[in-house]
Formats: sequence, structure tokens, C-alpha cells
Amino acid sequence: MAPFQLQSPLDMHLHLREGDLLNLVAPLSARAFAGAVIMPNLVPPVDNAARLDSYRAAVDTAIGDAVFEPYMTLFFRPYTADELEAMRSRIVGIKLYPAGVTTNSEAGVRALQEAEPTLGLMQELDIPLLVHGESNGFVMDREAEFMPVYEHLARTFPRLRIVMEHITTRQAVAFLDRYANVFATVTLHHLVLTLDDVAGGLLAPHLFCKPIAKRPEDRDALLAAALSAHPKLMFGSDSAPHPQHSKECAGCAAGVFTAPVALPMLVELFEKHDALDNLQAFVSDNARRIYSFTPAPKAVSFVKEATVVPQRYATVLPFGAGKTVAWRLSETGQTLV
Amino acid sequence: MAPFQLQSPLDMHLHLREGDLLNLVAPLSARAFAGAVIMPNLVPPVDNAARLDSYRAAVDTAIGDAVFEPYMTLFFRPYTADELEAMRSRIVGIKLYPAGVTTNSEAGVRALQEAEPTLGLMQELDIPLLVHGESNGFVMDREAEFMPVYEHLARTFPRLRIVMEHITTRQAVAFLDRYANVFATVTLHHLVLTLDDVAGGLLAPHLFCKPIAKRPEDRDALLAAALSAHPKLMFGSDSAPHPQHSKECAGCAAGVFTAPVALPMLVELFEKHDALDNLQAFVSDNARRIYSFTPAPKAVSFVKEATVVPQRYATVLPFGAGKTVAWRLSETGQTLV
Repeated sequence: MAPFQLQSPLDMHLHLREGDLLNLVAPLSARAFAGAVIMPNLVPPVDNAARLDSYRAAVDTAIGDAVFEPYMTLFFRPYTADELEAMRSRIVGIKLYPAGVTTNSEAGVRALQEAEPTLGLMQELDIPLLVHGESNGFVMDREAEFMPVYEHLARTFPRLRIVMEHITTRQAVAFLDRYANVFATVTLHHLVLTLDDVAGGLLAPHLFCKPIAKRPEDRDALLAAALSAHPKLMFGSDSAPHPQHSKECAGCAAGVFTAPVALPMLVELFEKHDALDNLQAFVSDNARRIYSFTPAPKAVSFVKEATVVPQRYATVLPFGAGKTVAWRLSETGQTLV
Repeated sequence: MAPFQLQSPLDMHLHLREGDLLNLVAPLSARAFAGAVIMPNLVPPVDNAARLDSYRAAVDTAIGDAVFEPYMTLFFRPYTADELEAMRSRIVGIKLYPAGVTTNSEAGVRALQEAEPTLGLMQELDIPLLVHGESNGFVMDREAEFMPVYEHLARTFPRLRIVMEHITTRQAVAFLDRYANVFATVTLHHLVLTLDDVAGGLLAPHLFCKPIAKRPEDRDALLAAALSAHPKLMFGSDSAPHPQHSKECAGCAAGVFTAPVALPMLVELFEKHDALDNLQAFVSDNARRIYSFTPAPKAVSFVKEATVVPQRYATVLPFGAGKTVAWRLSETGQTLV
């Protein structure tokens, strides 16, 4: 079978961490992708120019000479126009974690009111808003309960590009078609997992993430939208490395480490569903159009060759550790691997 | 505040294991309870007279001289009339784990057909049927999907006492009132937990059990039935000791170890809801009536004295480890503790 090629694949939601973890995981993403949207929820958060520049520098160092653009983001807080104008050229979006949004949508919207001046500025400066959209309600309901907040935002700021990050429900898929300014990312693991995989047999902490994997009909709706290359849906791995001891313990951290295996697994998944022709749009073209940017040219090739996923990358266990994937990343435009 | 006393509290669903674990946990149950229904799902299962007698002997040895009756059960398989008649006086029920029951209720009922001659014999010999009622469906739906199987059993064997074990849903609570021959046990942890406690924050493997804790409205229905001493509902801890390394790992075993803490926590819970007067029925009287047996007299007293739950019992972490409970088991009819 001929190699399969992707042009400048993008990961539109990536956690790179700092320090040793950054240096471990950044090269793995930089090998396979042409760029990624880098999440700012560090301690302290990335929410000012100095922190932004220093984190960008650390990421650049970790990437080395790979062709890979780290699309930086800020952590949401009330910003002034001067601040945003000064940083505009260095970021692709601002990430909002709406802590304290309750199941009551009216209260949720009220909690967002103090954010509205900044959201207005973002609309004027054409800075996308990236949202972790979950209420404080019951874990299986949190995302669906958040839809009225998205609706409020989409109506109040009709020119603000709003990205529903790592969507997990059929409700979010359906919501994509309701407002022209609403888009979404979806992870690999939410295209294949349900809560059954996390807690239906033995409990699987390495598959535990937030938002948690939902019902089969949710997974099916997400998968159908991805396979059909829904024009408002982008691939975002939400890849989140946690050391093994943080996953196998009495209180296990949320996050699945998919970055090094995501693309071969997506090739396998789309091929299985006879949708390989749509993968380019899902992992790159939709994002370029939605974000209005052009990544560096980078051809990434895959050969159909059964390959076992490594059991670990240093202290971190990847998604699918030890399992066989039908495809292997063979080379990029820069280097033969 | 005066001590609170329970007369011969019973645990109608208990896993005692074998070997070292049995010797660790049996005395903890024997201290607090007057008796318990002992589950037979060992390897090999308890499904013949020799195994039944040897397991009973091991349990008796582990209990020592405590006043505590281990009500023995058999693991379901097709039994002959001779077998059941010979063991009738040594058991209080037969436990059915309906492996292979699918979400399709018709297929589920069909899978039970080969069990029906034995169920008929059990009806004639007045041997209760204890059922782990879950389908093979999505983890949050498995118990509710099983209700048609209970319905089929209740109609086909109207004189067979059927106990829905460790119920977790509002559907099972409602089903209690539909057939005179259907009863249920409920655990302590399902009266207080929802899936939010297991997976809504950090993942909590020590709260992971089967059936998994469900939605708030399920927990509320279970709690209301228990607090009101629903006459067909009995306390059964489903206490299941697992060594810490089996809970904090990549594939964590299901089960919550509640036996040593269940009664003080139930006193606290019922007091908080102003329902202490109903606790005696929930933890003893209902079971005596449903099972038609009389436990040995054993008064168990509790004093209202804030007490910290031990962090561990040898290798096993108990429910609520390190938390403070408002009541403490002070003495039994036999020994001052």
C-alpha cells in the first residue's frame, strides 16, 4: 500500500507543561505536527507579556530545529486594550476556564459578566476565545449544561470566534451548526472511548480525562462529525502528560497523553471508516480556515506497517501503550525517522 | 447524648474472601454485626457441599468466638433437587451473576432459560435467589436495563424470593413496589456517593465499585428508601477488601471496603436525616422478616464521639480513611471494646 501523506497537520489543543516534561513531550509533537495551539494553564498561568515570551522561549528551546510552530495563547483574565494590542501578534487566542459557572445557566452567564469588556476587546481585535465549557453540575451533564453559556456568548459577541474545546457530547456537535461564530476541537480519545472504557470493566486511570468520556451515542456523534470533516471541527489532542505516579494513586489526575500516537491512530481510524480523504481537513485545513493562518509547509508520511505503541515515554504512559497500530509515521518533510 | 443501640444488626451482602484477607476482615464484621450473608464468588466458586463446608469452617475459624452468624450462600449453577435438598439447611440463598445477559431483554431472558429448572427447585425449596442485576450495556444503564429480567423472574416464579443485590438506581427502587416477591439490598456507599465522587474531580479508585455509583437522583431515591425503612430494603454492605496495590494501579479492581465503618457511618447518616428510629428496621428487622430467620441476640451500642477512620487495615484502605465520623461503636452484648 502506498504511503499516506498529510500536509502540515495541526494539533489545535496541546498541553506542553514546563521543565522536564516540556523537554520530554515537545519534541514528540514537533516531530509529527507542523504546529499546535499551546495551552496556558500553568502555575503561574501565562497571562502577561513577560510570561508569554519566556514560556515561548522555553517551548522553542524544547522544540529545537524542528519545523513546528507553537501557537501561543493567554490564560483569560480581564485585560486592557493596551495589553491585548501589545500581545496580539504573539497569540492566536485566549483560553477561558469558567470556574464557578453553575448548572443554572442564568447564574453562569452572570458569572461571565465581568469578562464581557475583555470579550468585547477580543472581538474588536479578532482574538479567538477558546473555552473549556463545563458547568459545575453532575459530571456526565457538565458539557451539555454549558450550551446556554455558549449561546449567550455567541449572540452577545457575534464577530468573536468561539472555540468549544475538546467537545465530548452530541449536544456540542449539534450546537456547532447553530451559530456561525462557534467552532470546536475534539480529541482522538473522545472519538474512540466512552465511559465504559474508563469505568465499565476495571477502572482505567490512564483513560481518565476532563471532560470525561461520555455515552456511546455521544462518541458516535463526535466520530461522525470528524469522519465527515465537519467544516467547523478541528483536531485538538488535549494531550496531557502526567507521570505514572500521578495516574496510579488514590486521587488520579485527569489527562490522556496522546500526542506521539495521535496521527497514526487517526490514520488507522479514518481508514477503517473509509474516510481517509477527509483526514487532511480534520487535522489541518479546517483549522487554517477557522484561525485564518497558514502553517509552514511540512509533509508527514505514514506507511501501513503494524507498530506497537511504546509502553512509556520516560515517566509518562501514552494512550494505547503496548497496543498495535496499523500505521506508522515514516518521515516528515525535514527528516527521515 | 445517650448511647444509641442496635439489636443484632445484619450485613446482608458481604465479601469475606479467603486466606489472609479472610482472617483480616472477618473479625471486623464479626465485631459489629450479628450476622452477614457471605458471598460465594471465590475461585473456585462455592458451588458444592464440600466447598461450602470447608469455606464455612474457614470463616468460623476467622471469626473466632464472636457472636456472629455467617449465612452461607451458593454460587448459581444448574443444581439437582438432591443437591439442593442436601444443602438446604446450610444456606440462605443462591447468588446469580448473570454473565452474558445483554441489553436486549428478550435475549437476556433467553440466557436465563437454562437456569429455570434450578430456579423452579429453589422456589419449591424456598431458597432465595440473590442477583447481581446488570446487563452488558453501557455502564450507567446496566442496572436499569436489567429490570425486564427481574420482571420475567418475578412473574415466572411468583413464590421465589428474589433479592436485587446492591441496587444503585431509582429504577430499582421503583421496581421494589411492583412484585411481592422482589426485595433488595443497598450498600452504605451507594447511599452517599454519585459518579461525581468517583470521577467528578480527581479519579478516586477507592470509591470505584460495581455497580458503579450513579446520578444524584439515583442516590437520592436510594437514600429516601433507606431512611424511610422501606420494608423490602435491607442493608448489605457489599464490603469488598482489595489490597492497596490492586486499587492504585493501571487497571483498578472494583469494590469498596466498608465493613468496619459501616454501622457508625449509618448511625451518623440516619441521625443527620432525623431517621434514627428507622435504622433498626433497615439494618436488621427487614432482613429477618424477608429471610425468615432470627439472628442471635446481640446488642451493639454507639456513642456520639468524633472518631477518625483508620487510614488502613493492613494492606486494605477502608471507606472514609482518615475522615471523622460522629459516632463510635462502643460495645457489643458480649465484649467491651
